[in-house]
Amino acid sequence: MTANPVKIGIVGLGRWAKVLTRAAAKSEKIRIVAAFSRSEEKRTAFERATGVQTVPDLQAMLSNREIAGAILTVPNEQHLPVAAAVAKARKHVYTEKPIASTLEEGLEIAALEKKYGITVTVGHSARLMGGIRKMREAIDRGDLGRVAFIEANFSNERALELTPKTWRWYKDRAPGGPLSQLAIHQFDVLHYLGGEIVEASSIASKLSPVGAEVDDQSMTLLKFADGKVGYVGSCWTSPGVFAVRVFGSQGLM
Amino acid sequence: MTANPVKIGIVGLGRWAKVLTRAAAKSEKIRIVAAFSRSEEKRTAFERATGVQTVPDLQAMLSNREIAGAILTVPNEQHLPVAAAVAKARKHVYTEKPIASTLEEGLEIAALEKKYGITVTVGHSARLMGGIRKMREAIDRGDLGRVAFIEANFSNERALELTPKTWRWYKDRAPGGPLSQLAIHQFDVLHYLGGEIVEASSIASKLSPVGAEVDDQSMTLLKFADGKVGYVGSCWTSPGVFAVRVFGSQGLM
Repeated sequence: MTANPVKIGIVGLGRWAKVLTRAAAKSEKIRIVAAFSRSEEKRTAFERATGVQTVPDLQAMLSNREIAGAILTVPNEQHLPVAAAVAKARKHVYTEKPIASTLEEGLEIAALEKKYGITVTVGHSARLMGGIRKMREAIDRGDLGRVAFIEANFSNERALELTPKTWRWYKDRAPGGPLSQLAIHQFDVLHYLGGEIVEASSIASKLSPVGAEVDDQSMTLLKFADGKVGYVGSCWTSPGVFAVRVFGSQGLM
Repeated sequence: MTANPVKIGIVGLGRWAKVLTRAAAKSEKIRIVAAFSRSEEKRTAFERATGVQTVPDLQAMLSNREIAGAILTVPNEQHLPVAAAVAKARKHVYTEKPIASTLEEGLEIAALEKKYGITVTVGHSARLMGGIRKMREAIDRGDLGRVAFIEANFSNERALELTPKTWRWYKDRAPGGPLSQLAIHQFDVLHYLGGEIVEASSIASKLSPVGAEVDDQSMTLLKFADGKVGYVGSCWTSPGVFAVRVFGSQGLM
């Protein structure tokens, strides 16, 4: 048992913040001690659901010297301003994926590490899954021979549940639809399993009947530095799938 | 029991001719009564393996008035000249996939139907598989709701077995490698399940160590006329896979 768990805050108190807070409660290494949302309604609901105390403004969290870092589950376009505020207070940043909606903002967030001497971590959790780690071990051991081909899919029907009240409805706030919401996990998995990616091309389509601005289908082809090829698909209007297949000359997983 | 099975010939006596001839022997509807290859060695081996009598030249088969048509299992670049000879003799043509290596040759073969009043059939057998037909039935019944996304893969390790003696070694004779040898089955399956295709883009790679001219990895994205998207992958250096997944708003198969 760790005597001194790292104390952290969480910013943005929607559905995912509750999932992470419940998971953190099982860890002996970290403890979430403060939570912030601009919405009083969300603060109240979060306190009731998790028992974690909320603070009425971000500064109240950032001025707490006990807190070492913050988890960001705010909408994507707020990643940069909130991460910058957290980093400026010399606290570490953990932000949900995607790091940002544009390359420029992503690079600005990454640059916070050097500028303030803190660590930025992006929530690419899929590579931590047991099955993915087994694939990586098999590749590293050479069990699959020469890997030439990787396919992945992450799909669910959330596009059918979108409403104009959710930020994922809007093209400028969730560009690419399932590309930035789901497929991005598999891009990280393919990078983890296959190394550097040198080419990418995509097609997308909008077929959901609900009327959201965003595309709801996404298929991407990738080429790795060593010539391997990769595919990531994400259908946002169908029952859930999470699948990865690695094709090697000596085996298939 | 059919009293009068249709009598046919087979041209090109490699591995696949034996598979088809064994399958035909179980049918009461057709009977293979003559077989031709330019290679005497292949003719002898085929007679021994199947018991079907061979003929020393194609005309001997085509002048046989009992024979209604011919199965072509010759290399792709011979599809057009052999199909033209068979059609000119007013006999039906069944040719293995792909119909040809170029669009022009494919259209010339298709035009034989009108020109000579015969039927040309291309061996896209995958759509006849039980699982594929179940998918089509489920789509037609509406069980899957709105279909938005189809993924397919057909892979095997034959690229590792290529030698300069086989026509599939050469770029001009088997363009695209697994694209024209394997993926083509899935293009037909996706067309069968999803309708007209209006856009296609591919990536390919050559990773097999044997030195063949052809690519051995192929990934293609497709867009259907109604906005659906499709993917077909084919890895030619890995253990076998034949997989099709249809994503609908009400179900997944």
